[in-house]
Amino acid sequence: MPHRSGRHFLQIPGPTNVPDRVLKATSYPTIDHRGPSFATLGRKVLDGLKTIFGTEHDVVIYPSSGTGAWEAALVNTLSPGDRVLMFETGHFGSLWADLAGRLGLDVELVPGDWRSGVHPDTVEARLSADEQHTIKAVAVVHNETSTGVTSNIPAVRVAMNRAEHPALLMVDTISSLGSIDYRHDEWGVDVTVGGSQKGLMLPPGLGLNAISEKAKRAYESATLPKAYWDWLAMWESNPAGFFPYTPPTNLLYGLSEALDMLLGQGLETVFARHARHAEATRQAVQAWDLELLCQVPEEYSNTLTAVCVPDGHDADALRSVILDRFDMSLGAGLSKLAGRVFRIGHLGDLGDLTLLGTLSGIEAGLRITGIPHREGGAGAAIRYLADNP
Amino acid sequence: MPHRSGRHFLQIPGPTNVPDRVLKATSYPTIDHRGPSFATLGRKVLDGLKTIFGTEHDVVIYPSSGTGAWEAALVNTLSPGDRVLMFETGHFGSLWADLAGRLGLDVELVPGDWRSGVHPDTVEARLSADEQHTIKAVAVVHNETSTGVTSNIPAVRVAMNRAEHPALLMVDTISSLGSIDYRHDEWGVDVTVGGSQKGLMLPPGLGLNAISEKAKRAYESATLPKAYWDWLAMWESNPAGFFPYTPPTNLLYGLSEALDMLLGQGLETVFARHARHAEATRQAVQAWDLELLCQVPEEYSNTLTAVCVPDGHDADALRSVILDRFDMSLGAGLSKLAGRVFRIGHLGDLGDLTLLGTLSGIEAGLRITGIPHREGGAGAAIRYLADNP
Amino acid sequence: MPHRSGRHFLQIPGPTNVPDRVLKATSYPTIDHRGPSFATLGRKVLDGLKTIFGTEHDVVIYPSSGTGAWEAALVNTLSPGDRVLMFETGHFGSLWADLAGRLGLDVELVPGDWRSGVHPDTVEARLSADEQHTIKAVAVVHNETSTGVTSNIPAVRVAMNRAEHPALLMVDTISSLGSIDYRHDEWGVDVTVGGSQKGLMLPPGLGLNAISEKAKRAYESATLPKAYWDWLAMWESNPAGFFPYTPPTNLLYGLSEALDMLLGQGLETVFARHARHAEATRQAVQAWDLELLCQVPEEYSNTLTAVCVPDGHDADALRSVILDRFDMSLGAGLSKLAGRVFRIGHLGDLGDLTLLGTLSGIEAGLRITGIPHREGGAGAAIRYLADNP
Amino acid sequence: MPHRSGRHFLQIPGPTNVPDRVLKATSYPTIDHRGPSFATLGRKVLDGLKTIFGTEHDVVIYPSSGTGAWEAALVNTLSPGDRVLMFETGHFGSLWADLAGRLGLDVELVPGDWRSGVHPDTVEARLSADEQHTIKAVAVVHNETSTGVTSNIPAVRVAMNRAEHPALLMVDTISSLGSIDYRHDEWGVDVTVGGSQKGLMLPPGLGLNAISEKAKRAYESATLPKAYWDWLAMWESNPAGFFPYTPPTNLLYGLSEALDMLLGQGLETVFARHARHAEATRQAVQAWDLELLCQVPEEYSNTLTAVCVPDGHDADALRSVILDRFDMSLGAGLSKLAGRVFRIGHLGDLGDLTLLGTLSGIEAGLRITGIPHREGGAGAAIRYLADNP
Repeated sequence: MPHRSGRHFLQIPGPTNVPDRVLKATSYPTIDHRGPSFATLGRKVLDGLKTIFGTEHDVVIYPSSGTGAWEAALVNTLSPGDRVLMFETGHFGSLWADLAGRLGLDVELVPGDWRSGVHPDTVEARLSADEQHTIKAVAVVHNETSTGVTSNIPAVRVAMNRAEHPALLMVDTISSLGSIDYRHDEWGVDVTVGGSQKGLMLPPGLGLNAISEKAKRAYESATLPKAYWDWLAMWESNPAGFFPYTPPTNLLYGLSEALDMLLGQGLETVFARHARHAEATRQAVQAWDLELLCQVPEEYSNTLTAVCVPDGHDADALRSVILDRFDMSLGAGLSKLAGRVFRIGHLGDLGDLTLLGTLSGIEAGLRITGIPHREGGAGAAIRYLADNP
Repeated sequence: MPHRSGRHFLQIPGPTNVPDRVLKATSYPTIDHRGPSFATLGRKVLDGLKTIFGTEHDVVIYPSSGTGAWEAALVNTLSPGDRVLMFETGHFGSLWADLAGRLGLDVELVPGDWRSGVHPDTVEARLSADEQHTIKAVAVVHNETSTGVTSNIPAVRVAMNRAEHPALLMVDTISSLGSIDYRHDEWGVDVTVGGSQKGLMLPPGLGLNAISEKAKRAYESATLPKAYWDWLAMWESNPAGFFPYTPPTNLLYGLSEALDMLLGQGLETVFARHARHAEATRQAVQAWDLELLCQVPEEYSNTLTAVCVPDGHDADALRSVILDRFDMSLGAGLSKLAGRVFRIGHLGDLGDLTLLGTLSGIEAGLRITGIPHREGGAGAAIRYLADNP
Repeated sequence: MPHRSGRHFLQIPGPTNVPDRVLKATSYPTIDHRGPSFATLGRKVLDGLKTIFGTEHDVVIYPSSGTGAWEAALVNTLSPGDRVLMFETGHFGSLWADLAGRLGLDVELVPGDWRSGVHPDTVEARLSADEQHTIKAVAVVHNETSTGVTSNIPAVRVAMNRAEHPALLMVDTISSLGSIDYRHDEWGVDVTVGGSQKGLMLPPGLGLNAISEKAKRAYESATLPKAYWDWLAMWESNPAGFFPYTPPTNLLYGLSEALDMLLGQGLETVFARHARHAEATRQAVQAWDLELLCQVPEEYSNTLTAVCVPDGHDADALRSVILDRFDMSLGAGLSKLAGRVFRIGHLGDLGDLTLLGTLSGIEAGLRITGIPHREGGAGAAIRYLADNP
Repeated sequence: MPHRSGRHFLQIPGPTNVPDRVLKATSYPTIDHRGPSFATLGRKVLDGLKTIFGTEHDVVIYPSSGTGAWEAALVNTLSPGDRVLMFETGHFGSLWADLAGRLGLDVELVPGDWRSGVHPDTVEARLSADEQHTIKAVAVVHNETSTGVTSNIPAVRVAMNRAEHPALLMVDTISSLGSIDYRHDEWGVDVTVGGSQKGLMLPPGLGLNAISEKAKRAYESATLPKAYWDWLAMWESNPAGFFPYTPPTNLLYGLSEALDMLLGQGLETVFARHARHAEATRQAVQAWDLELLCQVPEEYSNTLTAVCVPDGHDADALRSVILDRFDMSLGAGLSKLAGRVFRIGHLGDLGDLTLLGTLSGIEAGLRITGIPHREGGAGAAIRYLADNP
C-alpha cells in the first residue's frame, strides 16, 4: 500500500495517542527482569501508580488487557456462587457482568438505559433489601466507554454506607484513570480496575488493580480458583520491584515515562485539560444540533463523547467515510448502539489543534454523508478554546 | 546514574535480545483495534504463527506472560478434579504443575533429577497403568529453561500411542519455539504453549496456544471456569483478524516484523544457527573443564546451557561480578539450583561475535572470582565457529 | 519543563513534519560507509533523487544545508568575477545573491517587490542586452520561501532561448522539490539546488545539486576555488555508491525511506495533494478577509502561504500567541516583511485534518489577538476539502 | 535480503557505534529552528562542546563532514597564496594538505613514513628557517585515523614557541575528540577541527571548529572567499542559540544527549576507558605475533589500532572474510597501505565484551584465512581486561 500522507488521527476512546517519549521508551532494549536495574524500575512504576489511583495501598500490574484486570478483581476476592451487584450502564458494564457470571458468580444485573450512570438510590435500595448480606460486591464502571457516561462513585459509596452493607466496592476506571478525578482511598473503593491504553497514554497490554485493606482481607477467604491473577504472588515479589512471572518490561519502561509526564504536569492539570477538551467537544455537538447520548449533564464524560445520528442515518457509514477520506478513526456504537452513535475520544495525550482537526473532520464527514446538521461545530469549538485558556 | 558505555549483553535464557527492526516496529503509533488496518495485521500474525508452531489448526494470542498461556491451555480443556500427568524436569515443570493444582486439577507429578528430560518409558508405564483413563492430560516442558534439558516430544507421543491412552498431550515450548525444531501437528501435540520473549525475539507480553482438533473437542466438555482465557471468544473474533478484547497492538507489530525475519531466513536456518551456537558454547564449557548440568547429550538444549560451578563456589557471586564488571546478565540457578549453576542464553537474535563476547566475559569472570577452570574456553569456541561455518 | 500534551504543530515552510517511518529509518545503526551495504544504499538514493528532480543526469548529495547547495552550484561552474543575473524575489533570492557576491562573483540583482515572481520579459531583456555574453548564469528561486510566490521556470527558459544567450540556468527548488511539479531535464535547467527538509520530508542536513551536461562542461573551465563542494570527487565515487568523504549515513537511510514513500505514491499524486491543501488554505484566508502576500494567482505557491496582517497589527505577536496557546509554529515574516506577514507551511507529509487543525489554530489566534477578520476561514477549508476529494 | 541474525559489529575507526539513547534522540520530531525551544538546545550544545574541546572560546557547528570543518578552518583564517606547513602523517594528513592546495594555499608538506607522528624538532626547524614569517599556519592531525598514530600537540606548541613564530596552530581531532585527552586552550591551539561520528558517538553530519582569540583576529584579515563556512555569521547567530542557515536539528538533539552522557561520565573516565581498551587490543596483537603499524609506543593511538599483515597476505581478504562470516566491519588500509593493514576501531560507545567479541572475530578470521599468527590474542585481552578493572 502506498504511504498515506500525514498523521493518522486516532480519536477512538482508547487506545489513545501514545506520545513519542513513551513510544521511544517502550523501544529500549529489554533487560533482565531479575536484575537490579529492573528492580529500580519495578518499584518506581508501582509507586507512581499509587499516586495515579489515589491510594497508599497496593497496586498490582498484570501483563493483560483491562478484561484481565476485571477478572483479577473478582477471582481474588470472591468465591463460587457469591452474589455480585452489577449495572448495565452500557456495553462494558454488561461485559463485566457476563465475565463475572462465567467465573461462577451469581450476578444481579441492574438494567440501565445506556444514557445515564448508576443511580445511588438503586444501590442503597438493593443493598438495604439484602439483609443477609449475601451480596459480596458492588461493581460499577466509573466511565462507561461505550456511552460517554460517568457514574458518581462517591455517591455510590455513600449509598453503600447508608445501607450499612459490607459488600466490597469495585470500580472499573479503565477509560477514566489518569484523565478524570479519581480517588481510590478517599472514596472508599476496594478494588479499582485500570488499564494502560487510555489516560496512561501507553499501548495496550497492562491490566491494573488497586486494592484496599478490606479487599486484602477478602482475599484470605476467597476460593475462586486463581493462579495467573493471584495477588499473593504479586505481594511477595513486588516490594522488591519484581514480578512472579516475566513482566512486560518494555511497557513498564513506557509506564515509567508516562508517570513522569503525568505527575510532572500534575494530576489537577491533567484533569482540567480533559474537562476543557470535553466541553469544547460538546460545544461542537450542540452547534451541529446533534444529540449527545448521555442525558445527564452531571454525568458527561470528560474522556469521550458519544453522539447520536438522526434516525435513518448510519453512524458507521459516517465513520467509514471519515476514515477513508480523512484518515481518522472514531469509535463505533457498540452492540445495541451499533450504527446509531459514533464516539469521539478526547483523552490522553491530546492538544487543542488535534481536537480541532478532529472536530473539523467530523464536520466534513457530516457534510459528505449528508447527515442533517448545522455547520459551525468546529467553529464553536475554536471560539470555546480561544476564550477559555 | 552515569551512562554505562557500550551495549548491555543480555545473555539470560529469555527475554532475549530484541532486534532493532522489531523494537522499532513496536514503537509505531497504536491503531484502532477494530479497524481494517488492524484486521490485516491480526490475520497476518495468526497465520505466521501457524508456520512457527508447525500447525494448520488454530493458534491464539493472549496479552499475557507464558504463565498465562499455561493457564489457558488447562482451563480450556479440563474440568475440576481432572488428573494431569506432569514432570519435574526442573523449576518450570514444577511451576506448571503447581499452577495446575491451584486451578483445581489433580496433578500427578513424576519426580525428576533436574538433569535429564522426560522418560518416554515412564509416560508409557503411567498411562498403561491408568486403565480407567482418569488421566486427562500429559503435560511436558519441551525445553526446560531452568536446566538446559530438552525432552523428546515425538518419543513421548509414541509412548502415549503405545499405551493407547486418550489423554491430551500438552507441551510448553516457551524457550524452544522458533529456536529448536518443533512440529505441533506432525508430533501429535494437542496444546502447545509459547511466549513472545524468547525465540520470537520480542519483548515479553504475549502468551500463545496452538490447539489441535482433539483439544478443540475437549473444549466442549471442559468446565473449569474461564473468561479471559476462553478460546471460544478468540475463535469467534480471530478469523476476521480481531480479538475479543483490546489486543496488545504494538507487540503484534513486533510479531509481524519478527515473523518476516524468521520466515525470511527459513526455520531450518534458524534451527541450525541455534544448534551451532549451542555447540560452540558447550565446547567452551568443556575447555574450561566445567560440568554441564544436562547429563544426557541427546537432550542438550540448543537455546541455553546451564553450567555447574565446583562445590564451594558461588555461581551467583560469579554472575554478580560479571554484571558489575562486564555489564552482562546471565541466568541464575533457580530454586534448588540457586548458587550452583549459571545459565547462558544463546537463543533469539544472536550473532557469532556476541556469543564470543559472552563466553569471553564468562572466562574473565571465572578468572576474577578464582573459580577453578582451565583457560581457553572462549578460544575453543573461536576455533569451533571458525571451522564450522 | 513539564510535558506539553499532544503533538506540536510544525507548520513553518520547512523543516516539515518528518513521518515516523522516516524518523525511524534515520535511527538505524550507522554502518561502514565503505562497505557493500552502504554501496547499495548510496546507489539507490542517488537514483531515486534523479526521478524526483526529473533528470537522467547527475545528482550530488552534500552533508550541508540548502545554503551549501547554493554555494556548490556556483563554485563548480563559475570563475571569479563572472557575472550572474539574480532576482530579488524575496529574502532567499536576496541571500543567494549575497552569497554569490561573497564568493567573488559579479551579481546583477534585478529588484523585486517580494509579491511576484521573476518576469520572463526582464530575463529576455537583460540577456539580449548582454551582447558579449558576459553573464554566465541566470539564477532563479523556483518557490520563494519567504513570500509564497513561485516563478515560472519554463517561461524563464523560453526567455533565455529567445535571447539566444548561453548563460547557465540555475534554479533553487529548496521549498518546491518533491512538492510542486519540477522537471530539470525537460525545462532545460543546468543546476538545480535542493535540500532535505521540505518536500523530501527529512530532517535538515542534506544539500542537493542536479547537474546538466552543459553544467558539467562548465565545470571544466570554472576556476572558483573548491574542495568540499567539488563535483569531480562526487563523480568519481558516486557511481559505485560511495562518497568522497564521510556521508551523513543516517539521513541517507531516511532519504531511502522517503523516496519509497514519494515514489510509491507517485509524484503526480504528491503534487495534486499539495495543490489541494494550498487551495484550501487560500480559501480560509479569503474567508477571513485577510490579504495574501502573493499578488499573482498564477504564482501562488502550493507549499506555503504568506498572509498579511492589517496595518497596525503585529504578525509576530499573533505567532507568539499561537505558539504559546496552541503549540503551533508558523513562519515569521523575514527581513522587510518582519511583523507584517505570517507564513503557513502546508508541504511535506501533511493530511487534511492536520491542515484543518492548523487553520483552526490560526483562527483562534486571530480571535485572541483581536486582529480584524471574519470568522469562518477554517469552516471554508472544511467545505473545500469535503467537496474536493 | 534475509535478516542477518544479531548485531553488526561496527569496529571501524568511525563512524562509531551510536548508543540507543543518542539514536532515539535524533529521531524526535524536528522543531522550528527559529523558535525558543531550539534556542535552548542551540545554546546547550554550543556550551557543552566547549567543555569537550577544553576551551572557553568559540565553537562553531556546521552541517558537514569533517572535511568541511577542515575547509572552514582554512578559509576563515587565511588568504590566497598563504604558506601552510602540513605533515604527511598518513592518508588524512595528506588529504588535508591536498584540500588546502585546492583552496589556493601554498602547502609545504613535510614527508612522513605513516608510522610515526609529527616530529616537534622538524616543526621548530622549519619555522626557525622561515625568518620572514611567510608560513601562516601549522596544521597537524592529532590522531591519524589511517595509521593509529597520535602526534604530541603540546610538544608541537613548544616547538613553535621556541621558534618564536607567529603562525596559527591548527589541529585535526576528528578521531580523537572526546576519546583522547585534548585541551584547546591549555595547549595553545588556534583552530581545532572535529566531527560528530567518532568519540562524540553521533552519526556523521556535523563538522566542528574551536577557535582561539588569535584565530578570531586572523579572521579579520583573511581573504579566501567564504560564505557557507563564514564564522562571522555564526558569531552573530550563535549567542542566541541560533544558526545562520537551517541547522541539522536532529543531529543536535543527538549531540545534546551525547554531551549529557560524556560529561555525566566525566572526560577523565572516558579517556581512561579508551586507554584501557586500546591496551587490551595491543595485547591481543602482540599475542598474535602481528606487527603494529605505529612504531612509537608513546604515539600509540587510543582510539584505533592499525595492524600489519605479513607480506604475501591480503588484509582486505581478511576483512572481507570477517565481514562475510562474522558480520563485522573493520577499517581498510588506505591508499598506500591498502591490503597491507587492517584497522580496529575501539572508540566511542564501547564495552569490554564488544571489544572481546571484536578481537575474537579477528582471531577467527586469521584462522580461516590462514594468515600466520599465534592463537590466543583474544585470550590475552581477556586476561588484561580481567586484571585491569
